[in-house]
Amino acid sequence: MTGALSVVGLGPGEPRFLTPEASEAIAQAEDFFGYLPYLDRLALRDDQRRHASDNREELSRAEAALTLAAAGGKVCVVSGGDPGVFAMAAAVCEAMDRGPEDWRAIDFRVVPGVTAMLAVAASAGAPLGHDFCAISLSDNLKPWSVIERRLIAAAEAGFVMAFYNPVSKARPHQLDTAFDVLRAHLPAKVPVIFGRAAGRPDEAIRVVPLAEARGAMADMATCIIVGSVQTRLIERPGKPALVYSPRFWEEG
Amino acid sequence: MTGALSVVGLGPGEPRFLTPEASEAIAQAEDFFGYLPYLDRLALRDDQRRHASDNREELSRAEAALTLAAAGGKVCVVSGGDPGVFAMAAAVCEAMDRGPEDWRAIDFRVVPGVTAMLAVAASAGAPLGHDFCAISLSDNLKPWSVIERRLIAAAEAGFVMAFYNPVSKARPHQLDTAFDVLRAHLPAKVPVIFGRAAGRPDEAIRVVPLAEARGAMADMATCIIVGSVQTRLIERPGKPALVYSPRFWEEG
Repeated sequence: MTGALSVVGLGPGEPRFLTPEASEAIAQAEDFFGYLPYLDRLALRDDQRRHASDNREELSRAEAALTLAAAGGKVCVVSGGDPGVFAMAAAVCEAMDRGPEDWRAIDFRVVPGVTAMLAVAASAGAPLGHDFCAISLSDNLKPWSVIERRLIAAAEAGFVMAFYNPVSKARPHQLDTAFDVLRAHLPAKVPVIFGRAAGRPDEAIRVVPLAEARGAMADMATCIIVGSVQTRLIERPGKPALVYSPRFWEEG
Repeated sequence: MTGALSVVGLGPGEPRFLTPEASEAIAQAEDFFGYLPYLDRLALRDDQRRHASDNREELSRAEAALTLAAAGGKVCVVSGGDPGVFAMAAAVCEAMDRGPEDWRAIDFRVVPGVTAMLAVAASAGAPLGHDFCAISLSDNLKPWSVIERRLIAAAEAGFVMAFYNPVSKARPHQLDTAFDVLRAHLPAKVPVIFGRAAGRPDEAIRVVPLAEARGAMADMATCIIVGSVQTRLIERPGKPALVYSPRFWEEG
């Protein structure tokens, strides 16, 4: 008897960003797997069970969820933001790819959500209005040399960049290294947006020129957007400046 | 008397992807600007007015919306997907940047949504689970040489790519050119996902190896995701294969 597994994106944090599709997937499930702060966002019924795990345990969490679904469970794995962007959808696929054959018969689906960079961009203006890339700065899963090569490629090709997982206790200095790399390839005035807790009551958006960007301006809950040479500021009376990347591109 | 202007993302198409935040912003507005198919998705009240315009008229639409908001209107500009990704948020910022000073006093906000690539990725598995970029293939607003340079940079740096605006009647051959460029820089077996009408009843997801990818497989409503060298397929009995990009990266 094969069950079902949905991987659901909760959006940036508040119920007002949770899609009706995600709410329905949550209502249909009985067992919930995820990082505790995400499970804490759910208003579950008495017949729904929580299986919390730590932030660094994505693969074992995915295996536990697949095991229960293969045994007939109605299982939901939750991610903040969108589950497909540096989150649980890929971890569940990795586990399924390596796991027993019967995991592939599970009724599997991914429910998208508003990922952090979109929420930060919306709060800042329209910095992702032109071609952009999304890079996880964590070197837990790839060598730092790969990250550095991507930063340089993105800067030279004119992509705006969004950084996920910019810092952690185990990696306090990488974000400063990333800014140093970018300062060698982008003008000092390029705007850098630090978006913390976007879409939550304690949201904080800070914009500084690349020359002044420092790793200490971010924590684990920060998504960072680095503009391109064409990203602009709109100063406004009595309001924070808007940051946007024009849709057009003029060669300098 | 200054009014309000919200730029709202409707998500991939169905009301089940519209966030409560977007629904509330729509309920609060009186005048709606947008491309007709997006306005048609709204269930407006009798006291709410529609101002439809053509797909190619983003800047004049933005100016009309800002003019009305500056005169005290409660204005909403709608985009499919997320308004910050190749959509109206940047067009409104461009207009504000060039326009009269009083437009900067408007109570302006952007309400994010689920952008097309996230919906396509969710339907296919987790192809955006690793570093990725988003590129508009339209050369209306930038030279084709810039697009080609970005395709090569992204392929060489190992980014998965999402293509927006892949084709139009005026540009029937560019997508084939893009695939030809990529075939010179990526293995023939890299999966290419054609996601048409993702999140709608007529959704169609097609996955082919890069060697077989053709421009004729896409239309204006298609979002395309091109995998990296490490993007994988999971074959499933009686179900479409899942496509995913592992979170880790191993140098080949």
